[in-house]
Amino acid sequence: MSKHYPKGEQTRQKILEQAAQVFSVYGYAGTSLDALMQVTHLTKGGIYNHFGSKETLAVEALDYAIKEMQARFWEYLTDSRSSRARLLAVVQTFRSSIDDPRFAGGCILLNTAVEADDTNPPLKERAQQGIDDWLIYIKRTIHKGIELGTIRPDTEAETVASIMLATLEGATMLAKLYDEPTYMYRACDHITEYIESFLEENPT
Amino acid sequence: MSKHYPKGEQTRQKILEQAAQVFSVYGYAGTSLDALMQVTHLTKGGIYNHFGSKETLAVEALDYAIKEMQARFWEYLTDSRSSRARLLAVVQTFRSSIDDPRFAGGCILLNTAVEADDTNPPLKERAQQGIDDWLIYIKRTIHKGIELGTIRPDTEAETVASIMLATLEGATMLAKLYDEPTYMYRACDHITEYIESFLEENPT
Repeated sequence: MSKHYPKGEQTRQKILEQAAQVFSVYGYAGTSLDALMQVTHLTKGGIYNHFGSKETLAVEALDYAIKEMQARFWEYLTDSRSSRARLLAVVQTFRSSIDDPRFAGGCILLNTAVEADDTNPPLKERAQQGIDDWLIYIKRTIHKGIELGTIRPDTEAETVASIMLATLEGATMLAKLYDEPTYMYRACDHITEYIESFLEENPT
Repeated sequence: MSKHYPKGEQTRQKILEQAAQVFSVYGYAGTSLDALMQVTHLTKGGIYNHFGSKETLAVEALDYAIKEMQARFWEYLTDSRSSRARLLAVVQTFRSSIDDPRFAGGCILLNTAVEADDTNPPLKERAQQGIDDWLIYIKRTIHKGIELGTIRPDTEAETVASIMLATLEGATMLAKLYDEPTYMYRACDHITEYIESFLEENPT
Protein backbone atom coordinates (compact mmCIF):
# COMPACT_ATOMS: atom_id res chain seq x y z
CA MET A 1 0.00 0.00 0.00
CA SER A 2 1.11 3.51 -0.92
CA LYS A 3 4.81 2.63 -1.01
CA HIS A 4 5.73 5.28 -3.56
CA TYR A 5 3.90 8.24 -2.07
CA PRO A 6 5.69 11.14 -0.35
CA LYS A 7 5.46 11.20 3.47
CA GLY A 8 2.37 13.46 3.82
CA GLU A 9 0.51 11.44 1.22
CA GLN A 10 1.52 8.20 2.99
CA THR A 11 -0.07 9.44 6.23
CA ARG A 12 -3.19 10.34 4.30
CA GLN A 13 -3.38 6.92 2.61
CA LYS A 14 -2.90 5.21 5.98
CA ILE A 15 -5.79 7.22 7.47
CA LEU A 16 -7.97 6.29 4.49
CA GLU A 17 -7.12 2.59 4.88
CA GLN A 18 -7.99 2.68 8.60
CA ALA A 19 -11.14 4.73 8.08
CA ALA A 20 -12.32 2.47 5.22
CA GLN A 21 -12.01 -0.56 7.52
CA VAL A 22 -14.10 1.12 10.25
CA PHE A 23 -16.74 2.51 7.86
CA SER A 24 -17.02 -0.91 6.17
CA VAL A 25 -18.03 -2.51 9.46
CA TYR A 26 -20.10 0.20 11.18
CA GLY A 27 -21.44 2.20 8.24
CA TYR A 28 -21.39 5.98 7.99
CA ALA A 29 -23.94 6.80 10.71
CA GLY A 30 -22.59 4.01 12.94
CA THR A 31 -19.01 5.33 12.86
CA SER A 32 -18.34 7.91 15.55
CA LEU A 33 -15.60 10.50 15.42
CA ASP A 34 -14.22 8.79 18.55
CA ALA A 35 -13.91 5.50 16.67
CA LEU A 36 -12.09 7.27 13.83
CA MET A 37 -9.74 9.01 16.30
CA GLN A 38 -9.00 5.72 18.01
CA VAL A 39 -8.18 3.79 14.84
CA THR A 40 -6.13 6.57 13.22
CA HIS A 41 -4.38 7.67 16.44
CA LEU A 42 -5.24 11.24 15.47
CA THR A 43 -6.92 13.99 17.45
CA LYS A 44 -10.21 15.45 16.27
CA GLY A 45 -8.22 18.45 15.00
CA GLY A 46 -5.84 16.13 13.15
CA ILE A 47 -8.71 14.45 11.30
CA TYR A 48 -10.40 17.75 10.43
CA ASN A 49 -7.03 19.15 9.40
CA HIS A 50 -6.59 16.39 6.82
CA PHE A 51 -10.18 15.99 5.61
CA GLY A 52 -12.38 18.88 6.76
CA SER A 53 -15.33 16.74 7.88
CA LYS A 54 -16.45 13.20 8.64
CA GLU A 55 -18.43 13.22 5.39
CA THR A 56 -15.41 14.16 3.28
CA LEU A 57 -13.38 11.47 5.03
CA ALA A 58 -16.16 8.93 4.30
CA VAL A 59 -16.29 9.91 0.61
CA GLU A 60 -12.49 9.68 0.29
CA ALA A 61 -12.37 6.39 2.20
CA LEU A 62 -15.01 4.98 -0.18
CA ASP A 63 -12.96 6.22 -3.11
CA TYR A 64 -9.88 4.56 -1.66
CA ALA A 65 -11.77 1.27 -1.14
CA ILE A 66 -13.09 1.33 -4.71
CA LYS A 67 -9.55 1.75 -6.06
CA GLU A 68 -8.29 -1.12 -3.89
CA MET A 69 -11.01 -3.44 -5.24
CA GLN A 70 -10.23 -2.32 -8.80
CA ALA A 71 -6.53 -3.09 -8.23
CA ARG A 72 -7.60 -6.59 -7.20
CA PHE A 73 -9.69 -6.88 -10.38
CA TRP A 74 -6.66 -6.06 -12.54
CA GLU A 75 -4.72 -8.85 -10.79
CA TYR A 76 -7.46 -11.34 -11.73
CA LEU A 77 -7.58 -10.18 -15.35
CA THR A 78 -5.36 -12.70 -17.12
CA ASP A 79 -6.07 -11.61 -20.70
CA SER A 80 -7.65 -8.25 -21.35
CA ARG A 81 -8.34 -9.13 -25.01
CA SER A 82 -10.61 -12.08 -24.13
CA SER A 83 -14.30 -11.33 -23.49
CA ARG A 84 -14.52 -14.42 -21.27
CA ALA A 85 -11.47 -13.45 -19.21
CA ARG A 86 -12.74 -9.89 -18.73
CA LEU A 87 -16.20 -10.97 -17.52
CA LEU A 88 -14.88 -13.78 -15.32
CA ALA A 89 -12.43 -11.39 -13.65
CA VAL A 90 -15.46 -9.37 -12.47
CA VAL A 91 -16.99 -12.54 -11.01
CA GLN A 92 -13.67 -13.47 -9.39
CA THR A 93 -13.32 -10.05 -7.76
CA PHE A 94 -16.71 -10.38 -6.06
CA ARG A 95 -15.95 -13.95 -5.03
CA SER A 96 -12.70 -12.80 -3.43
CA SER A 97 -14.54 -10.18 -1.35
CA ILE A 98 -16.03 -13.15 0.53
CA ASP A 99 -13.15 -15.66 0.33
CA ASP A 100 -10.41 -13.17 1.08
CA PRO A 101 -12.04 -9.92 2.25
CA ARG A 102 -10.02 -6.77 1.61
CA PHE A 103 -12.25 -4.82 4.03
CA ALA A 104 -13.63 -6.26 7.25
CA GLY A 105 -17.23 -5.24 6.57
CA GLY A 106 -17.53 -6.76 3.10
CA CYS A 107 -18.42 -4.82 -0.03
CA ILE A 108 -18.20 -1.14 0.84
CA LEU A 109 -20.08 -0.18 -2.33
CA LEU A 110 -23.05 -2.31 -1.26
CA ASN A 111 -22.96 -1.02 2.32
CA THR A 112 -22.71 2.60 1.22
CA ALA A 113 -25.37 2.25 -1.48
CA VAL A 114 -27.89 0.79 0.95
CA GLU A 115 -27.16 3.28 3.72
CA ALA A 116 -26.78 6.46 1.65
CA ASP A 117 -29.52 6.05 -0.98
CA ASP A 118 -32.11 8.00 1.02
CA THR A 119 -29.92 10.08 3.29
CA ASN A 120 -26.53 11.24 2.04
CA PRO A 121 -26.27 12.70 -1.50
CA PRO A 122 -22.42 12.98 -1.69
CA LEU A 123 -21.90 9.39 -0.51
CA LYS A 124 -24.75 8.17 -2.73
CA GLU A 125 -23.17 9.86 -5.74
CA ARG A 126 -19.76 8.31 -5.06
CA ALA A 127 -21.37 4.86 -4.63
CA GLN A 128 -23.17 5.37 -7.96
CA GLN A 129 -19.83 6.18 -9.61
CA GLY A 130 -18.28 3.04 -8.07
CA ILE A 131 -21.07 0.81 -9.40
CA ASP A 132 -20.94 2.70 -12.72
CA ASP A 133 -17.30 1.68 -13.14
CA TRP A 134 -18.38 -2.00 -13.09
CA LEU A 135 -21.48 -1.48 -15.26
CA ILE A 136 -19.58 0.51 -17.89
CA TYR A 137 -16.72 -2.00 -17.98
CA ILE A 138 -19.15 -4.90 -18.53
CA LYS A 139 -21.14 -3.02 -21.19
CA ARG A 140 -17.95 -2.04 -23.03
CA THR A 141 -16.79 -5.67 -22.90
CA ILE A 142 -20.09 -6.86 -24.42
CA HIS A 143 -20.04 -4.23 -27.19
CA LYS A 144 -16.43 -5.00 -28.02
CA GLY A 145 -17.08 -8.75 -27.96
CA ILE A 146 -20.01 -8.38 -30.37
CA GLU A 147 -17.74 -6.35 -32.66
CA LEU A 148 -15.00 -9.00 -32.49
CA GLY A 149 -17.41 -11.91 -32.91
CA THR A 150 -16.65 -13.40 -29.47
CA ILE A 151 -20.11 -12.53 -28.08
CA ARG A 152 -23.48 -13.32 -29.68
CA PRO A 153 -24.76 -10.24 -31.55
CA ASP A 154 -28.19 -10.28 -29.84
CA THR A 155 -26.66 -9.92 -26.35
CA GLU A 156 -28.02 -6.89 -24.50
CA ALA A 157 -25.12 -5.14 -22.81
CA GLU A 158 -27.30 -3.16 -20.36
CA THR A 159 -29.12 -6.32 -19.27
CA VAL A 160 -25.95 -8.34 -18.75
CA ALA A 161 -24.37 -5.57 -16.68
CA SER A 162 -27.52 -5.24 -14.51
CA ILE A 163 -27.89 -8.97 -13.91
CA MET A 164 -24.21 -9.52 -13.10
CA LEU A 165 -24.07 -6.67 -10.58
CA ALA A 166 -27.45 -7.43 -8.98
CA THR A 167 -26.67 -11.12 -8.51
CA LEU A 168 -23.12 -10.64 -7.22
CA GLU A 169 -24.03 -7.80 -4.82
CA GLY A 170 -27.11 -9.68 -3.56
CA ALA A 171 -24.97 -12.77 -2.99
CA THR A 172 -22.47 -10.68 -1.05
CA MET A 173 -25.31 -9.65 1.27
CA LEU A 174 -26.49 -13.26 1.77
CA ALA A 175 -22.98 -14.66 2.29
CA LYS A 176 -22.25 -11.99 4.92
CA LEU A 177 -25.66 -12.29 6.61
CA TYR A 178 -25.33 -16.06 7.09
CA ASP A 179 -21.50 -16.15 7.34
CA GLU A 180 -21.80 -18.75 4.57
CA PRO A 181 -19.71 -18.40 1.38
CA THR A 182 -21.90 -20.96 -0.45
CA TYR A 183 -24.34 -18.16 -1.35
CA MET A 184 -21.51 -16.44 -3.22
CA TYR A 185 -20.29 -19.65 -4.89
CA ARG A 186 -23.79 -20.43 -6.20
CA ALA A 187 -24.13 -16.89 -7.59
CA CYS A 188 -20.69 -17.13 -9.25
CA ASP A 189 -21.60 -20.49 -10.84
CA HIS A 190 -24.94 -19.08 -12.05
CA ILE A 191 -23.34 -15.97 -13.54
CA THR A 192 -20.53 -18.00 -15.14
CA GLU A 193 -23.16 -20.18 -16.83
CA TYR A 194 -25.03 -17.03 -17.86
CA ILE A 195 -21.84 -15.59 -19.39
CA GLU A 196 -21.15 -18.85 -21.26
CA SER A 197 -24.67 -18.66 -22.74
CA PHE A 198 -23.81 -15.60 -24.85
CA LEU A 199 -20.09 -16.23 -25.53
CA GLU A 200 -19.09 -17.41 -28.96
CA GLU A 201 -15.36 -17.69 -28.40
CA ASN A 202 -13.87 -21.15 -27.83
CA PRO A 203 -13.05 -22.08 -24.25
CA THR A 204 -9.37 -21.46 -23.60
CA MET B 1 -53.58 -1.81 9.24
CA SER B 2 -54.39 -3.30 12.64
CA LYS B 3 -58.13 -2.72 12.32
CA HIS B 4 -59.12 -5.62 14.51
CA TYR B 5 -56.71 -5.09 17.38
CA PRO B 6 -57.78 -3.82 20.81
CA LYS B 7 -56.89 -0.16 21.58
CA GLY B 8 -53.51 -0.78 23.32
CA GLU B 9 -52.41 -3.09 20.55
CA GLN B 10 -53.52 -0.51 17.93
CA THR B 11 -51.24 2.11 19.51
CA ARG B 12 -48.41 -0.40 19.49
CA GLN B 13 -48.99 -1.30 15.80
CA LYS B 14 -49.09 2.40 14.89
CA ILE B 15 -45.75 2.99 16.63
CA LEU B 16 -44.25 0.01 14.80
CA GLU B 17 -45.53 1.32 11.44
CA GLN B 18 -44.02 4.77 12.10
CA ALA B 19 -40.76 3.35 13.44
CA ALA B 20 -40.42 0.94 10.50
CA GLN B 21 -40.73 3.88 8.08
CA VAL B 22 -38.00 5.84 9.88
CA PHE B 23 -35.64 2.86 10.30
CA SER B 24 -36.14 1.95 6.62
CA VAL B 25 -34.82 5.35 5.54
CA TYR B 26 -32.13 6.11 8.13
CA GLY B 27 -31.04 2.64 9.26
CA TYR B 28 -30.60 1.58 12.87
CA ALA B 29 -27.53 3.66 13.75
CA GLY B 30 -28.86 6.62 11.74
CA THR B 31 -32.18 6.76 13.62
CA SER B 32 -32.01 8.87 16.74
CA LEU B 33 -34.35 8.57 19.70
CA ASP B 34 -35.38 12.16 18.90
CA ALA B 35 -36.47 11.11 15.41
CA LEU B 36 -38.49 8.22 16.85
CA MET B 37 -40.10 10.56 19.45
CA GLN B 38 -40.98 13.04 16.71
CA VAL B 39 -42.60 10.53 14.38
CA THR B 40 -44.49 8.62 17.07
CA HIS B 41 -45.50 11.73 19.09
CA LEU B 42 -44.32 9.87 22.19
CA THR B 43 -41.97 10.94 24.94
CA LYS B 44 -38.76 9.04 25.56
CA GLY B 45 -40.50 7.41 28.54
CA GLY B 46 -43.46 6.46 26.35
CA ILE B 47 -41.21 4.65 23.88
CA TYR B 48 -39.26 2.85 26.60
CA ASN B 49 -42.53 2.02 28.34
CA HIS B 50 -43.79 0.21 25.24
CA PHE B 51 -40.55 -1.38 23.98
CA GLY B 52 -37.81 -1.21 26.63
CA SER B 53 -35.04 -0.07 24.28
CA LYS B 54 -34.31 1.30 20.81
CA GLU B 55 -32.93 -2.12 19.87
CA THR B 56 -36.13 -3.94 20.87
CA LEU B 57 -38.17 -1.38 18.97
CA ALA B 58 -35.94 -1.91 15.90
CA VAL B 59 -36.32 -5.71 16.10
CA GLU B 60 -40.11 -5.43 16.47
CA ALA B 61 -40.35 -2.84 13.67
CA LEU B 62 -38.39 -5.20 11.41
CA ASP B 63 -40.72 -8.02 12.38
CA TYR B 64 -43.71 -5.81 11.59
CA ALA B 65 -42.22 -4.84 8.19
CA ILE B 66 -41.54 -8.50 7.32
CA LYS B 67 -45.18 -9.39 8.08
CA GLU B 68 -46.43 -6.49 5.94
CA MET B 69 -44.34 -7.67 2.97
CA GLN B 70 -45.54 -11.24 3.49
CA ALA B 71 -49.16 -10.00 3.48
CA ARG B 72 -48.44 -8.40 0.14
CA PHE B 73 -46.98 -11.70 -1.13
CA TRP B 74 -50.20 -13.54 -0.24
CA GLU B 75 -52.16 -10.98 -2.27
CA TYR B 76 -49.99 -11.71 -5.32
CA LEU B 77 -50.35 -15.47 -4.92
CA THR B 78 -53.16 -16.32 -7.33
CA ASP B 79 -52.92 -20.12 -7.12
CA SER B 80 -51.04 -21.71 -4.25
CA ARG B 81 -51.12 -25.13 -5.97
CA SER B 82 -49.16 -23.95 -9.02
CA SER B 83 -45.35 -24.01 -8.80
CA ARG B 84 -45.18 -21.22 -11.38
CA ALA B 85 -47.68 -19.01 -9.52
CA ARG B 86 -45.84 -19.52 -6.21
CA LEU B 87 -42.42 -18.58 -7.61
CA LEU B 88 -43.72 -15.66 -9.66
CA ALA B 89 -45.50 -14.23 -6.59
CA VAL B 90 -42.06 -13.97 -4.94
CA VAL B 91 -40.75 -12.07 -7.99
CA GLN B 92 -43.85 -9.83 -7.99
CA THR B 93 -43.42 -8.97 -4.30
CA PHE B 94 -39.86 -7.74 -4.87
CA ARG B 95 -40.93 -5.84 -7.98
CA SER B 96 -43.67 -4.10 -6.01
CA SER B 97 -41.16 -2.93 -3.38
CA ILE B 98 -39.78 -0.67 -6.13
CA ASP B 99 -42.97 0.09 -8.10
CA ASP B 100 -45.17 0.66 -5.08
CA PRO B 101 -42.93 0.86 -2.00
CA ARG B 102 -44.57 -0.18 1.27
CA PHE B 103 -41.71 1.42 3.24
CA ALA B 104 -40.02 4.67 2.25
CA GLY B 105 -36.47 3.27 2.48
CA GLY B 106 -37.00 0.21 0.29
CA CYS B 107 -36.40 -3.38 1.39
CA ILE B 108 -35.95 -3.31 5.16
CA LEU B 109 -34.53 -6.83 5.13
CA LEU B 110 -31.74 -5.76 2.77
CA ASN B 111 -31.04 -2.58 4.73
CA THR B 112 -30.96 -4.40 8.06
CA ALA B 113 -28.89 -7.30 6.74
CA VAL B 114 -26.22 -4.98 5.36
CA GLU B 115 -26.11 -2.76 8.43
CA ALA B 116 -26.40 -5.40 11.15
CA ASP B 117 -24.22 -8.23 9.78
CA ASP B 118 -21.08 -7.09 11.61
CA THR B 119 -22.53 -5.05 14.43
CA ASN B 120 -25.89 -6.04 15.90
CA PRO B 121 -26.56 -9.75 16.66
CA PRO B 122 -30.30 -9.46 17.56
CA LEU B 123 -31.11 -7.45 14.40
CA LYS B 124 -28.89 -9.73 12.30
CA GLU B 125 -30.71 -12.79 13.63
CA ARG B 126 -34.12 -11.32 12.83
CA ALA B 127 -32.97 -10.35 9.32
CA GLN B 128 -31.72 -13.93 8.85
CA GLN B 129 -35.15 -15.24 9.87
CA GLY B 130 -36.83 -12.86 7.43
CA ILE B 131 -34.64 -14.03 4.52
CA ASP B 132 -35.07 -17.63 5.72
CA ASP B 133 -38.84 -17.30 5.27
CA TRP B 134 -38.29 -16.60 1.55
CA LEU B 135 -35.56 -19.23 1.09
CA ILE B 136 -37.60 -21.94 2.82
CA TYR B 137 -40.75 -21.09 0.87
CA ILE B 138 -38.87 -21.32 -2.45
CA LYS B 139 -37.13 -24.57 -1.49
CA ARG B 140 -40.42 -26.12 -0.37
CA THR B 141 -42.04 -25.04 -3.66
CA ILE B 142 -39.24 -26.69 -5.66
CA HIS B 143 -39.41 -29.94 -3.67
CA LYS B 144 -43.19 -30.07 -3.95
CA GLY B 145 -43.04 -29.27 -7.69
CA ILE B 146 -40.55 -32.10 -8.29
CA GLU B 147 -42.89 -34.44 -6.38
CA LEU B 148 -45.90 -33.29 -8.44
CA GLY B 149 -44.02 -33.39 -11.75
CA THR B 150 -44.38 -29.64 -12.39
CA ILE B 151 -40.63 -28.97 -11.88
CA ARG B 152 -37.73 -30.81 -13.51
CA PRO B 153 -36.38 -33.46 -11.14
CA ASP B 154 -32.75 -32.30 -11.45
CA THR B 155 -33.61 -28.79 -10.14
CA GLU B 156 -31.53 -27.87 -7.08
CA ALA B 157 -33.82 -26.21 -4.55
CA GLU B 158 -31.00 -24.60 -2.54
CA THR B 159 -29.49 -23.10 -5.67
CA VAL B 160 -32.77 -21.71 -6.99
CA ALA B 161 -33.56 -20.10 -3.64
CA SER B 162 -30.08 -18.52 -3.43
CA ILE B 163 -30.12 -17.18 -6.98
CA MET B 164 -33.64 -15.76 -6.72
CA LEU B 165 -32.96 -13.93 -3.45
CA ALA B 166 -29.49 -12.69 -4.44
CA THR B 167 -30.68 -11.31 -7.78
CA LEU B 168 -33.86 -9.68 -6.45
CA GLU B 169 -32.16 -8.12 -3.40
CA GLY B 170 -29.22 -6.92 -5.48
CA ALA B 171 -31.62 -5.39 -7.99
CA THR B 172 -33.43 -3.62 -5.15
CA MET B 173 -30.14 -2.00 -4.20
CA LEU B 174 -29.39 -0.90 -7.79
CA ALA B 175 -32.92 0.41 -8.44
CA LYS B 176 -32.81 2.45 -5.23
CA LEU B 177 -29.24 3.69 -5.76
CA TYR B 178 -30.00 5.03 -9.26
CA ASP B 179 -33.71 5.82 -8.64
CA GLU B 180 -34.24 3.68 -11.74
CA PRO B 181 -36.78 0.81 -11.67
CA THR B 182 -35.31 -0.69 -14.88
CA TYR B 183 -32.71 -2.52 -12.77
CA MET B 184 -35.53 -4.32 -10.99
CA TYR B 185 -37.45 -5.05 -14.22
CA ARG B 186 -34.39 -6.63 -15.82
CA ALA B 187 -33.81 -8.79 -12.74
CA CYS B 188 -37.48 -9.86 -12.71
CA ASP B 189 -37.32 -10.79 -16.41
CA HIS B 190 -34.09 -12.72 -15.87
CA ILE B 191 -35.47 -14.62 -12.87
CA THR B 192 -38.77 -15.33 -14.67
CA GLU B 193 -36.79 -16.86 -17.57
CA TYR B 194 -34.70 -18.81 -15.04
CA ILE B 195 -37.89 -20.16 -13.41
CA GLU B 196 -39.33 -21.13 -16.80
CA SER B 197 -36.12 -23.10 -17.52
CA PHE B 198 -36.92 -25.70 -14.84
CA LEU B 199 -40.73 -25.70 -14.93
CA GLU B 200 -42.45 -28.61 -16.57
CA GLU B 201 -46.05 -27.49 -16.13
CA ASN B 202 -47.86 -25.99 -19.12
CA PRO B 203 -48.13 -22.20 -19.27
CA THR B 204 -51.56 -21.11 -18.07
